[in-house]
Parts: sequence; structure tokens; C-alpha cells
Amino acid sequence: MATINQNYQKLAGSYLFVEIARRVAAYKEAHPEADIIRLGIGDVTQPLPQVCIEAMHKAVDEMGKAETFRGYGPEQGYEFLIEAIRKHNYTDRGIDIASDEIFVSDGSKSDTGNIQEIFGTDNRIAITDPVYPVYLDTNVMAGRTGEKQDNGYYAGVTYLPSTAANHFSPSLPTEHVDIIYLCCPNNPTGTTLSREALTAWVNYAKKEDAVILFDAAYAAYITEPDVPRSIYEIPGAKDVAIEFRSFSKTAGFTGTRCGYTVIPKTVTGKGKDGSRVKFRDLWNRRHTTKFNGTAYIVQRGAEAIYTEKGQRQVKELVSYYMENARIIREGLQAAGIKAYGGVNAPYIWLQTPNNMPSWDFFDLLLTKVNIVGTPGVGFGPCGEGYFRLTSFGDRENTKRAVERIKNQLKF
Amino acid sequence: MATINQNYQKLAGSYLFVEIARRVAAYKEAHPEADIIRLGIGDVTQPLPQVCIEAMHKAVDEMGKAETFRGYGPEQGYEFLIEAIRKHNYTDRGIDIASDEIFVSDGSKSDTGNIQEIFGTDNRIAITDPVYPVYLDTNVMAGRTGEKQDNGYYAGVTYLPSTAANHFSPSLPTEHVDIIYLCCPNNPTGTTLSREALTAWVNYAKKEDAVILFDAAYAAYITEPDVPRSIYEIPGAKDVAIEFRSFSKTAGFTGTRCGYTVIPKTVTGKGKDGSRVKFRDLWNRRHTTKFNGTAYIVQRGAEAIYTEKGQRQVKELVSYYMENARIIREGLQAAGIKAYGGVNAPYIWLQTPNNMPSWDFFDLLLTKVNIVGTPGVGFGPCGEGYFRLTSFGDRENTKRAVERIKNQLKF
Repeated sequence: MATINQNYQKLAGSYLFVEIARRVAAYKEAHPEADIIRLGIGDVTQPLPQVCIEAMHKAVDEMGKAETFRGYGPEQGYEFLIEAIRKHNYTDRGIDIASDEIFVSDGSKSDTGNIQEIFGTDNRIAITDPVYPVYLDTNVMAGRTGEKQDNGYYAGVTYLPSTAANHFSPSLPTEHVDIIYLCCPNNPTGTTLSREALTAWVNYAKKEDAVILFDAAYAAYITEPDVPRSIYEIPGAKDVAIEFRSFSKTAGFTGTRCGYTVIPKTVTGKGKDGSRVKFRDLWNRRHTTKFNGTAYIVQRGAEAIYTEKGQRQVKELVSYYMENARIIREGLQAAGIKAYGGVNAPYIWLQTPNNMPSWDFFDLLLTKVNIVGTPGVGFGPCGEGYFRLTSFGDRENTKRAVERIKNQLKF
Repeated sequence: MATINQNYQKLAGSYLFVEIARRVAAYKEAHPEADIIRLGIGDVTQPLPQVCIEAMHKAVDEMGKAETFRGYGPEQGYEFLIEAIRKHNYTDRGIDIASDEIFVSDGSKSDTGNIQEIFGTDNRIAITDPVYPVYLDTNVMAGRTGEKQDNGYYAGVTYLPSTAANHFSPSLPTEHVDIIYLCCPNNPTGTTLSREALTAWVNYAKKEDAVILFDAAYAAYITEPDVPRSIYEIPGAKDVAIEFRSFSKTAGFTGTRCGYTVIPKTVTGKGKDGSRVKFRDLWNRRHTTKFNGTAYIVQRGAEAIYTEKGQRQVKELVSYYMENARIIREGLQAAGIKAYGGVNAPYIWLQTPNNMPSWDFFDLLLTKVNIVGTPGVGFGPCGEGYFRLTSFGDRENTKRAVERIKNQLKF
């Protein structure tokens, strides 16, 4: 008799963004005339940089001719892309990462979701609260947690509260943990961790023989000079940290799909016989066994952003969204709403007026001013009373949304 | 102290095709002048059908304009592709599959590797021997097997011998199993299961409350009229079978990446409390949590093969490779080598002369006639003494390879 993976039954009904889509669809069904502005899911709206378009046209042509056709590529990614990533994001910034420590994938959602597989189920995980739901959900699925409790917390998980009270920089855990998920710049709060805070985390991980899973999907949005772009800027991090990066927000690849994971060979875990095993080797085994590489066409598109012209176009794209972030942040503040983030990240994290529950605020925004945002509680219990807006809309809609909030809502 | 997933330590040193690549690279390093012909890894060589090229150029252009840009698509795939698949491969053939029972992915390697996650670790799996290594390896990684034994078999797994002696149609297991992997047309033997044999499997699964994981990645290569293209042609299969399909071999998408999985809602497993849970719902949860959809550009390319012109071009592509298969099969037979497959599949499965071990034959072919094939034992212990050649080379190389084997090897 085939049995199911029981751990799935511990999960909440549906993935956060699926639930949002469901509510929006239901509202639209009832109000087909509604002019809905979506600042909810972190999805971009601007076209791909021209360099990517040109590179992908060229790659498509190559696939149409026998002499230049490409079949299976290396599962880890093509050398041309790995070397471009390595040079631009690491070597040129004084960080020494080897080519075989970089794994190209179809995006950070896959990578941050799959990475837990190479760890034992006996590891205790710590996640900041609130945070991107994939980290927790995938650990629930793998049986690395207990049941969800009435207070919204899963048993067996260390939550690291991250709220306005601690300036969104969580304290180190008082108990031992083995795996720490850090998202920096953070999704959903839009805030970053300082060099000092990150150093403390690296030191904690070294002391506890723990591993930091560092999700830097939004690194391209950092504007302040002293905020680390990579965890490997912190001394010692190469012994304890795995880093995730993505082209989704950097270059508008949410529907084109490309990201990568960096695992230095010096990051190791304990094997059965007490020996130290390189997580890089385990990830390599997973990547070559369960994945067959990212489309050649897509990898050529990603490579293009590392040209001089590509870098200019990416910067323009990021600036466009960051100007939206400024408009939202300042608009909310003018409306008397407390708002955080939006300086080093494309997310604005607001405190709901009068401590309104997040989902109530979601429904209010949807039904009163036809704006879709994301309820903070969807990212963890400490997100209750907060709400996320993204700056990925187009300029016109962003301005209109802010005007609606300022003029049509009274608290 | 972070621990590793111990199950990975049960795996053989490296994934089969990685080991082949390693040996070929070492030989090439030592003999840079060698004119190597690759009939090893099942990778295609002919360009993508023109309809796919045209569709992808159009999609790339759409991604370059704000009005037509696409961000995140549905994780399950775009409706345009799902409906084309559904109509062409199911509805038009009298098989009733709902749209939300089809999940588009980045390929069958991912799908057949990830599917085991939605099952409990207490299920007993059965695999044909020999077969595509991903089924077994991913179950080893998940802890659904014991250790690898000296005889090459993993403890706790039911192997279904599939050799010339039983015409590559394995007997039903004598013990109870919960999950049965069937690859049909089979990789590596290039053989298919008859309608009667498949009916027996479906009946077995119904009786034992088991699930059949049916990998039909090579369905497009079936030429004989009575061989089922889909397991759902067998009465009752919709209650017990999950089917995997791919564009990799159908349309040359090995480097472009697209496939799909069909899970009827009637396929269920036992939950904790004894209730029946739809595997479709679990897969949907996995797909939406750990995957972010296949690139829009790629999905447009895949859709194009379902046009009338696309179907013509795909048939030409398949015929081209099947003519190669005929050349190899007949060439081997002329050289006095026993060969199977190559009629309903792009693989030729030969018996090594004088019972030579598979890896010895691999080295012999590589060093004496500079041809790369795949050692049968890499697909399972019953593959020992066999060897796989693929028909995915170009015509000229295929002919040259066959001539070399006929003229330069003496057994």
C-alpha cells in the first residue's frame, strides 16, 4: 500500500502566494470592472535588458543550426556564465571563489528549496521571522520540524524575531542550532544586516559548527556603501556559509529563470563515521542526479548582463524600481503609516494602522482601493501587524496606488 | 553541529554519465588527435525544429517589450502549453486528462527524480534492471533503500530483471511492492512492454494498492502500431499510474529543457489517519513550493511542436534518428553482435562479445575505435555484459562508427 509523505500534512493549506492569487481571482470574478494594481507578489514588470534580448536571439539562432546546436550542457552551468559570475561578483571584489564552487540553476526558489536535502533530518534549523516562506515549508516537507502549533509556530524550529523593536536585526539564538537561514536584503522587511551583525552570525556559526544559508537574491538593490553584497565579505564566512543569488530581480528574470548557488569546499558537515564531508560534493551529486542544467538560451541571456552595456542596463532597471520604492515609502509616511525598507531592497514593509491584522489589511486594500499587497503574517508569526508592498510595479501604477492610499483610506 | 544527509554516502562514487565524461576526458587529454564519435550519453545532435526557433524568437521579442513582458508564470505551466499537450497527447487519443492534472517542468530528469518526495520513506520500490539510474539514486538519497551490497544490489529494493532471457519484459514481483518504476520505451534496452504486459502491471498495482511511475520520455519513437504510447491507454491505469513525458528526445530539447508530469486525481495514497490523499495535490504543493515554472520562452518553443507544421518537423527529426538506429542495429548484426531495441526507441542494446564485462567493452571501444558508448552495468547489475549505443548522432558519424566496429574490431 503506497503511503504519502506525511510531513506534507503538517503544512498550511496552500503556499502564501497561491492563497493571495485565489483571493484576488475571487474578487475580480465578483468585480470584473475593478482596476486592480498589484504590488503583492514580488514580480517585476519591466522588460528584460536589451543585451539579454540580443543574446537570447543569437542563442535561439544557434539552436536552429546543426553546427552550433547545443544539447545537454554541464548540469552545473556553462563555463562562460560561471566565469562571468565569478569575475564580476567575486574575484573583482576581492573574494576568492573557485569555478567548481558555483552552481547555475533555474532560480533561487529551487535552490533554497532543495538545499536542505543534503543535510541530515536531525539538524535544528533557525529562520528569521518573518521571512520568505520557502525555507520553512521545505523543511516541514522534509520532516525537519514538528507539527504546526496553535500560535502559528512549528515545533522544533528556532524562530529569530525580526521586528521594528530590534531594528529587524535578530539576536543570536540562545540555544544551539545547526542551520541558519538569513535573507539579506531581507524579504519581506526590505532591511539589511550590518557588517557587524553579519560578523556576529559568522562567528556564531563557527563556534557552533553550524551552516549559514545566505540568500542574497536582492543584493543588486543595495545602495548604501557599507552593506555587504556577499556574505563572503565577512572574514571566516567561507568556512560556514552557502550563498544564493538570482537573476530574477537583478535583471527581470522571474519568467526567464536563472540563479546560482555558491558552496565553498571549506563548508563541511559531519558524516556518519565522524568524518567531515564537503557540502559542495553533496550538492554536486544532487545537482547532477536531479537536474539537467538551465536552458542554454537562458544562460546566454544571463551572461549578457556582465558586459559593460549589460551592467549599465541592469543599473537602470534597478534604479527604476528603487525610485518606485522611494515613492511608496515617502507616500506611506506622508499618509501617517510607519514604513521600513525600500533603501537597500525593493520591498516596503509597513506597520498596519491601529494594529490591524495583516489579512484584514489585505482585504481592506483589495476591496477599498483595489491594491494587492502581501500580508506580513504570511511570512511568519512576527509578520502579524505588518504588510509588504513591492516596488516592482510600473511607475504610473505605483504613483496611482500611493495616491489611492493617501486619499481614499482613512484610519 | 551540522550533519549531512547520510544516505548520500550509500551512493556509488559518481553519477554514471559523469564517470563516462571523466574517462573520455582523460583519454582525450592523452590522445588529443583522437577522432572520437559519441554514441554514449543519450544526447541529440540535430537542431531544434524550425517552428520552435520561430516561436522562441517571437517569445524573446515579447520579453523585450513592457506590453508583452512575462514575469512569473503559473508554476504548473502556461495554459497554452497545457492545453496543447492535453489535446494532442490525450484527448485526441481518447484519454480523458484534466488540465490541472498536467504539470509542466524543466524536464523528466527533474520530475522522475523529485516525484519520490511525495511518498513516505516506508514504501518499497521496484525498478526494472537495467534502467535509467535516476530512479534508484534518488530513492537512495531519500533513505528508501539500505546499503549497496557487494553484488551491486541495494538492500530493500525489489529488482525486476529484464534481459534477453525474458525478452526484456520483467515478471511481476513475487513480493509486495508499493512503487513501481517502468520506463517504456525502455532506457537503456530500447525495448517496449506489450499491451498485455502493461495490463498485467496495472492489475498488479490495483491489487497491491501500489503506484506505477511510468516514464514515457521516448514515446515519440514508437513505430509499431500496437505498442501503447501512454499508460492511460490501459484500462484502470488512471487509478494507479503517474506518467512522465519529455520534449528532450521528441523535439531535441535536451539543452532547452521542458517536460511534464501527468497525475490523475484518482491516484491516491494512504495518509497518517488512514485517509486517502491525492498524489496530485501533494505534487502541486511541491511544484508550487520548490519550483517557479519553466521559462516562458521555452514553453512557447514547446507549444510550437503541436501545430501541424510542428508535428511534421518532429516526425522528420524522429525518422532521422530512427534511420540511424536501423544502421547501427543492422551493422552490429552484420558484425556478428547480438543487438536489441532500435525499433520503438532510439537505443540499441547489444550483448558484449564473449561475455566481456561492460566497462571493459567501454574501454575497448574508446581506445581501439574511439567510440563512446554506455556500459550496460551502469544501468543495473542485470546490464552487465550489455552495452548501449544511441542513435542520436548525426548520420555521417553513425555510419563511420558502424564501419569502425565492423572493420577494426575482431572478437
